[in-house]
Amino acid sequence: MELVYILDILGTLAFAISGALVASDQKLDLFGVIIIAFVTAVGGGMLRDVLINAHPINWIGDLNYLYVIFIAVLLTFLFKSKILPLSKTLFLFDTVGISVFTLLGLQKGLNFDLHPLIALIMGMISAVFGGVLRDVLTNKIPLIFEKEIYASACLAGGITYLLLKKTPITDNLNFIVSASVIITIRLIAVKFNLELPKVKDDIFGK
Amino acid sequence: MELVYILDILGTLAFAISGALVASDQKLDLFGVIIIAFVTAVGGGMLRDVLINAHPINWIGDLNYLYVIFIAVLLTFLFKSKILPLSKTLFLFDTVGISVFTLLGLQKGLNFDLHPLIALIMGMISAVFGGVLRDVLTNKIPLIFEKEIYASACLAGGITYLLLKKTPITDNLNFIVSASVIITIRLIAVKFNLELPKVKDDIFGK
Amino acid sequence: MELVYILDILGTLAFAISGALVASDQKLDLFGVIIIAFVTAVGGGMLRDVLINAHPINWIGDLNYLYVIFIAVLLTFLFKSKILPLSKTLFLFDTVGISVFTLLGLQKGLNFDLHPLIALIMGMISAVFGGVLRDVLTNKIPLIFEKEIYASACLAGGITYLLLKKTPITDNLNFIVSASVIITIRLIAVKFNLELPKVKDDIFGK
Repeated sequence: MELVYILDILGTLAFAISGALVASDQKLDLFGVIIIAFVTAVGGGMLRDVLINAHPINWIGDLNYLYVIFIAVLLTFLFKSKILPLSKTLFLFDTVGISVFTLLGLQKGLNFDLHPLIALIMGMISAVFGGVLRDVLTNKIPLIFEKEIYASACLAGGITYLLLKKTPITDNLNFIVSASVIITIRLIAVKFNLELPKVKDDIFGK
Repeated sequence: MELVYILDILGTLAFAISGALVASDQKLDLFGVIIIAFVTAVGGGMLRDVLINAHPINWIGDLNYLYVIFIAVLLTFLFKSKILPLSKTLFLFDTVGISVFTLLGLQKGLNFDLHPLIALIMGMISAVFGGVLRDVLTNKIPLIFEKEIYASACLAGGITYLLLKKTPITDNLNFIVSASVIITIRLIAVKFNLELPKVKDDIFGK
Repeated sequence: MELVYILDILGTLAFAISGALVASDQKLDLFGVIIIAFVTAVGGGMLRDVLINAHPINWIGDLNYLYVIFIAVLLTFLFKSKILPLSKTLFLFDTVGISVFTLLGLQKGLNFDLHPLIALIMGMISAVFGGVLRDVLTNKIPLIFEKEIYASACLAGGITYLLLKKTPITDNLNFIVSASVIITIRLIAVKFNLELPKVKDDIFGK
């Protein structure tokens, strides 16, 4: 699917820019910014491919990922003050990227004959682990562990995809519907500032 | 060995609960708790399998690990106030888990025709790296680097296993003896609050 | 090339001692010091080999790496007060190690038929990722992201190697010239306290 590849690349661009912005706020040097942009953008898919033994792994098998990351760092380096006001556009790219990463990761898992549950996890790793690595390398508790609901959005979208796969609808339509589920949940969650429950208290209220 | 598999699963349960407890103390959300429970429980075996190229890796090849982790998180989420008083029971499961993880990891290394020294390291990685990953992801210096003597217990048990392997005793008996070495050392170390020496000073007392 | 192997081992020794010194400053116990020395010394090559699927990975395929790391920890443990005044010697070993790690990693990438750009990245991962892992495990923002110019030195040396490979000069001479580029840039950078630019401001001066 050509369109999916373009969305994958746009998502990679958004992830890389978000990584570069975080890194530059931390006063890392140019090399540090490139590494953080890199792990943010391709870290999730890289971990997935290492875990399922899919060689060559994502960015080794397709150089376009690297080129997009270099472009992202260059844009951030040159136009940081122009990019920041675009945060809504970036957020949209990022949300589309997450949905595409989740579903492509899930599909790759299924293509490797993994159990649907494992494939679902691979989809989620693809979508969220780049951000986790970014936060570990910049020495913060991963954001996603604290208040981001977007892992749940990926989960819901992935489950939708697996369920619809058992129906007669085409794979392309399934992809679009499931991606819409992820995008919709994330947009609603951010708009209404939703959070997942914490394990502070148990059902006995203690 | 059926019994070893049951102990492996019980150890995984204990590791996952300990991870979930740490994560919930850090006020992570449900998703964060699941991830931390997951890496604590299967992170060591996962790293071992990636390093020795043993695919499918542990939790991809056997779904029971995932199920046990989900149960552990559910138990922690629902009954946290009831679980905390069970810390001695959990500590026992955890200690048994460490001994079983060490010896199973070592055996797997030997089955992959690795040098005994490498196999020994694989056993230790299996036992301790889940905790290291848990600490890295929750942004702490890994506990084991600072005062836990249990890596030494794993080392002693692993060496025992390798030495007894050269004698005529059966592999099952060897497993039991070596596991007992690990469990005994850990219990004694915790009881008497033993620590490994630090490299603050050298033999010249400076 | 015999000489390159000796330099590789000397570089590993220097990396392991530097890791052990950092770890002992953090008051880690003996086990923690061994782990930090280990990841500092072989972490970069280990990551490279996992990513390009080169099994057995570096320290599993050649036990000498482990022996050198044990010797480094022993030396640090016994003679810490005697080693510290040798920091210039260590720095020299370390710089030679970086140059050799970069070029050996690059060559390995080329031998695996990777694109030269990917091979170049593999060279850099080999040289710098041990230090990154050391810093992540000791809970610091990786030093190299903040002010070390030595990644740039590795990059320059790697590009030199790739360019000279297209000329008729022998591979040995190419190795020596490219390593000299890395060593020279690093020595000059440290001497004049050079830094890479940061992304604080953009070209519009904001």
